[in-house]
Amino acid sequence: MTPTDSAQPATPAKTPARDPWDLPDVSGLVVGVLGGTGPQGKGLARRLAAAGQKVILGSRDAGRAEAAAGELGDGVEGAGNAEAARRCDLVIVAVPWEGHAALLASLREELAGKIVVDCVNPLGFDGKGAYAIRPVEGSAAEQAAALLPDSRVTAAFHHLSAVLLQDDTVERVDTDVMVLGEERADTEIVQALAGRIPGMRGVYAGRLRNAHQVESLVANLISVNRRYRAHAGLRVTDV
Amino acid sequence: MTPTDSAQPATPAKTPARDPWDLPDVSGLVVGVLGGTGPQGKGLARRLAAAGQKVILGSRDAGRAEAAAGELGDGVEGAGNAEAARRCDLVIVAVPWEGHAALLASLREELAGKIVVDCVNPLGFDGKGAYAIRPVEGSAAEQAAALLPDSRVTAAFHHLSAVLLQDDTVERVDTDVMVLGEERADTEIVQALAGRIPGMRGVYAGRLRNAHQVESLVANLISVNRRYRAHAGLRVTDV
Repeated sequence: MTPTDSAQPATPAKTPARDPWDLPDVSGLVVGVLGGTGPQGKGLARRLAAAGQKVILGSRDAGRAEAAAGELGDGVEGAGNAEAARRCDLVIVAVPWEGHAALLASLREELAGKIVVDCVNPLGFDGKGAYAIRPVEGSAAEQAAALLPDSRVTAAFHHLSAVLLQDDTVERVDTDVMVLGEERADTEIVQALAGRIPGMRGVYAGRLRNAHQVESLVANLISVNRRYRAHAGLRVTDV
Repeated sequence: MTPTDSAQPATPAKTPARDPWDLPDVSGLVVGVLGGTGPQGKGLARRLAAAGQKVILGSRDAGRAEAAAGELGDGVEGAGNAEAARRCDLVIVAVPWEGHAALLASLREELAGKIVVDCVNPLGFDGKGAYAIRPVEGSAAEQAAALLPDSRVTAAFHHLSAVLLQDDTVERVDTDVMVLGEERADTEIVQALAGRIPGMRGVYAGRLRNAHQVESLVANLISVNRRYRAHAGLRVTDV
């Protein structure tokens, strides 16, 4: 058993600690959502657009993306995945795990220099429920980083309920968003983006090498949802 | 991205749903804590004893266990690990990962038929902080189940702050305890035990095959603690 608070950093911080809640203004960023016609991508797009963010839904089928965008309103546009990737400043990857690698490999140029927010959960399902799949790269986020060496890859938005995101009667989505990445400037932008959605808070939660457990914890939340008939999310306490 | 609430169970429940908060009375159980002189084991022993539970601290060194028990008061006793295992009804395994397999292998007889609550987090540390170690069995809990085929192995109490557990000025430890296991009767006992500590709630969170991500999420909480100078825990929302 490792106490979470007994492990000290191996090297002392070189600069005085900055306020971790001093986050950048991201209201002007154009957000692309790849896989934006799926329940979670669409739900996230809806919440971000309602908060005032410019959102472009991407899909394999541009026509489906345009139709979904029309349903959402709030200035959301639809496009093919490549066009959504090209036009946005930051992209949320919300495609099924099965299509993750092929899609990202095809968008390396479009996503060069941009922040990529991977929220894919590699899971399998059988008669006993959900279980974690471990990608050879370690996690979906690390697979994205390997396929997109010119992008700024982060991981976030794993633990959201698509039902709550899409429910018009739910005004606040009461949950924390664990944000992982290698560069503080990048994770802070993603934290700020999460914080635009009422009820949500973006909390820094480590480097990409620790993404696998965050991604696969969704298997546990599925068990929680089944046992308690809930739409479970997570809050980090004492933060 | 897999919505947490879109995955339906593969087989419908055969019996009407029971109230998941209808938990057994565990106030009469004698709780052993192996590795009970470490910060987390001792902190947990302290909280359980303060809540009225009979607790026996186990340690490799019976004298150290007795000394630690004396400090805690509230009727806590100290003993060698084997004696603590023999005398208790339920045992919490709070030893360092490095000693986990050898200790459990040596206690197979003492722990036969008993509930074993594994709360060990297999982690490594380097200059970049903590990272997950993946046991060949899948997780520490599955290693325990492999080594203790005659015991009722569960996993819980991974995400607790040893600092908060041991701080006399902290009256409530505001956190949920994810409880994993194969048998509902066993996980409900562990949930009830967690619920005896003020501020804590035991939440069922899946089978042992999904323990690895729960164990290794401690690496992320260590990053949270460092960034926010916090003693982070978790709450499951909407439950």
